[in-house]
Amino acid sequence: MENKEFVKELTKMDEDFAQWYTDIILKAELVDYAPVKGFMVIRPYGYAIWENIQKILDNEFKKTGHRNAYFPLLIPESLLNKEKEHVEGFAPEVAWVTQGGENELSERLCVRPTSETIICTMYSKWVKSYRDLPLLYNQWANVVRWEKTTRPFLRTSEFLWQEGHTIHATEEEAREETLRMHKIYADFLENYLAIPVVMGRKSEKEKFAGAEETYTIEALMHDGKALQSGTSHYFGNHFAKAFDIKFQNKEGKMEYCYQTSWGMTTRVIGGIIMTHGDDRGLKLPPNIAPIQVVVVPIAQHKEGVIQKVEELKDKLSKHFSVEVDIRSEVSPGYKFNYWELRGVPVRIEIGPKDIENHECILFRRDTLEKETIKLDKLEERIKELMVDIQNHMFQMAKENVEKHTFIARSLEEYLDIFKHQQGYIKMMWCGCQECEDKIKEEVSSTIRCIPFHEEKLDNKCAICGKEAKHMVYTARQY
Amino acid sequence: MENKEFVKELTKMDEDFAQWYTDIILKAELVDYAPVKGFMVIRPYGYAIWENIQKILDNEFKKTGHRNAYFPLLIPESLLNKEKEHVEGFAPEVAWVTQGGENELSERLCVRPTSETIICTMYSKWVKSYRDLPLLYNQWANVVRWEKTTRPFLRTSEFLWQEGHTIHATEEEAREETLRMHKIYADFLENYLAIPVVMGRKSEKEKFAGAEETYTIEALMHDGKALQSGTSHYFGNHFAKAFDIKFQNKEGKMEYCYQTSWGMTTRVIGGIIMTHGDDRGLKLPPNIAPIQVVVVPIAQHKEGVIQKVEELKDKLSKHFSVEVDIRSEVSPGYKFNYWELRGVPVRIEIGPKDIENHECILFRRDTLEKETIKLDKLEERIKELMVDIQNHMFQMAKENVEKHTFIARSLEEYLDIFKHQQGYIKMMWCGCQECEDKIKEEVSSTIRCIPFHEEKLDNKCAICGKEAKHMVYTARQY
Repeated sequence: MENKEFVKELTKMDEDFAQWYTDIILKAELVDYAPVKGFMVIRPYGYAIWENIQKILDNEFKKTGHRNAYFPLLIPESLLNKEKEHVEGFAPEVAWVTQGGENELSERLCVRPTSETIICTMYSKWVKSYRDLPLLYNQWANVVRWEKTTRPFLRTSEFLWQEGHTIHATEEEAREETLRMHKIYADFLENYLAIPVVMGRKSEKEKFAGAEETYTIEALMHDGKALQSGTSHYFGNHFAKAFDIKFQNKEGKMEYCYQTSWGMTTRVIGGIIMTHGDDRGLKLPPNIAPIQVVVVPIAQHKEGVIQKVEELKDKLSKHFSVEVDIRSEVSPGYKFNYWELRGVPVRIEIGPKDIENHECILFRRDTLEKETIKLDKLEERIKELMVDIQNHMFQMAKENVEKHTFIARSLEEYLDIFKHQQGYIKMMWCGCQECEDKIKEEVSSTIRCIPFHEEKLDNKCAICGKEAKHMVYTARQY
Repeated sequence: MENKEFVKELTKMDEDFAQWYTDIILKAELVDYAPVKGFMVIRPYGYAIWENIQKILDNEFKKTGHRNAYFPLLIPESLLNKEKEHVEGFAPEVAWVTQGGENELSERLCVRPTSETIICTMYSKWVKSYRDLPLLYNQWANVVRWEKTTRPFLRTSEFLWQEGHTIHATEEEAREETLRMHKIYADFLENYLAIPVVMGRKSEKEKFAGAEETYTIEALMHDGKALQSGTSHYFGNHFAKAFDIKFQNKEGKMEYCYQTSWGMTTRVIGGIIMTHGDDRGLKLPPNIAPIQVVVVPIAQHKEGVIQKVEELKDKLSKHFSVEVDIRSEVSPGYKFNYWELRGVPVRIEIGPKDIENHECILFRRDTLEKETIKLDKLEERIKELMVDIQNHMFQMAKENVEKHTFIARSLEEYLDIFKHQQGYIKMMWCGCQECEDKIKEEVSSTIRCIPFHEEKLDNKCAICGKEAKHMVYTARQY
């Protein structure tokens, strides 16, 4: 009885994808809504996913020579105003502190929406000579952007992220750095989150406010919408000029620095949910799952069962992150649903009969398959499963992207596809903003990126018919 | 020449302790001042110390069953107002967000000065039954308190911390939790930061706003002032009543929860500096040092020297955190001062002669002693040194505390001590606030804590002469 109820509570993915998403994040206890509209509370299970993300990315950043630092939360309005494009991009969506203690402030302070301006201010103090370069800093922090429409993880007025900010002596080095981080993001999504990505750069219109070039990794969600999952910006020396970040080069001359920034946010947790989830709930790739194996006893009141379960936990905990569920007030069936909803990759079921036969049942969340395994082979088998599940989940996601990637050679074809389908539409593009605006107007889709490897689908722009400059990926977006 | 200049730049500790502190934090590149008064930038070397602190504490928290979560930065004024004592304590020192995007907000939001109110709001949603209890959550976050007089690490308008917030079914459990965390803090300071502490509870006056009991660990700095280094609060069910956090107990009756909170901040980095530092700069205990060993080549232009240094790094990096300094533009002497200023516990000096003799020189930062050691004994010797230095630093700090702990049996004695000395003054106390206020008025000292183990110095209060209730530690404070 209770099992059926459990599943019934989840909206079916195909019925209402948005409601399905909301059901999962709330019922799997990843997040909750905060008392202030647009803000979220990240609950322990959701935060544990973020901690794993942090651990892995932080390690990648440090291996490539980056160091963490911390810059202030509040930025004076005058600093925000220093770089023209930047302030135009961010000023409309920041929160302003106007009172400190019992006093009105003489200058408004914005809660950082991103930290270029404050970091540039410090860099201009710290950098004197080419010997001080590069500075390769990263910050793990919260940022606030006053969003009108919000959804937990995907778009919230406060979110957590890392923001890397680097300055270099040459354009070449800075461009290399931008691409290095772009690659680290892509590898992270594919190898850990099992999310296939398209790598490329943004169009002029979609670039970050103040950037010369923005690189993005785009991921396709199960409903055919794209999720921008991590961006890396090359700034040239726009900010260096605005903030006067100069250094003495080897020849003794003063030069402006070249700069990058790059960020990934709690949004990718939304990406995991919408790439892998199903009607039973969340599905977590083993490489990122806070709990990789859950042990559920059958007939746990029988002698020796709980003891065996604890024994398994001790043994398996050396290699995996293991949880046991010995609650007495709910049935094994309830527990199965409970942990499936939470996306734990592997479940072990074990009862008195199994113990007698020196075996147990293994259930894998990705394929929902069960197998019986001898206890002395258990460790080895779970090791294999971790790799299998990770690979299989990536493969499934990849197939889904392929199935939902289309080609349009004319506006008519383009619109026709959106009548029946959602997904990436690849098309040739002349490079002008009118054609970009046209697809947004018609079907709310945008150019997600100009990929590194452009296929030549045609000679002319699918929208206006003029000579094509690029092949682009377009989609509706989160 | 350049070496002398280096040291000359540091103010002597005995000449001007405050300036010495400022010199160290800036010149060792731990922090810098931010564009907004009272805010600090934590530079990579300072942040690396914080990362080590986080890693160790987080591990202790998880071992004792706590989980991390994240609650919003901004708290509506109406929530802050719910618990009377709490709002009185914090309202005067918060920063207020009054505008979001382009709109005036209908209700002011405070930037969290601490998160009891927002977390209680969520707990009241999440807790239904005794089965949901306890909730043992912790958050790593930034908080803002609008301070008038600030000093980096010690008191800043924004700082980083962890705040644990737990709720329990019984008073007993909550009280146990409070003391458990109090003990974890004390052990952390003593075993990792090599800072001896006095453990005890705060007087009524010095308690946290809204707490029934506040426990504190106090540390004595080199100038004889006390630093409150970590507090744990038992709330009873004050907040539970204000925020309606109720649960159904085993008997089916509704009850209010019992609650705790506990926090440690970036302030302890100031504690490390002021406990261990000397006229050469910072001195870091090996258990917390971001760099434990630095290798400085002598005559590095000679064949094979750099190569040997890199070889040592590779070998030693398996056990220690190692840095090599092969800058060619500065002398070995400059490098010695540079790394001494940064408090690296062990330095290796190695040149062509040493390489010929299969040896090197080891320098320890705590005693400034040098020794020659055969290269094949190096690893083993550094392992010993790490333990020795850690213990020795703790011992030295302990002796300093003992030397600066005094006893006063009357107000006269009390004031007399402050004429010549700074430190802890132990005294008997009647328990009334007038006597507490008296010493503050006279010499700006306060009751730091009522220790667990009270010595009976006398029968009567040192200040008013009435019957004594407690023995207390008093001091001037940071």
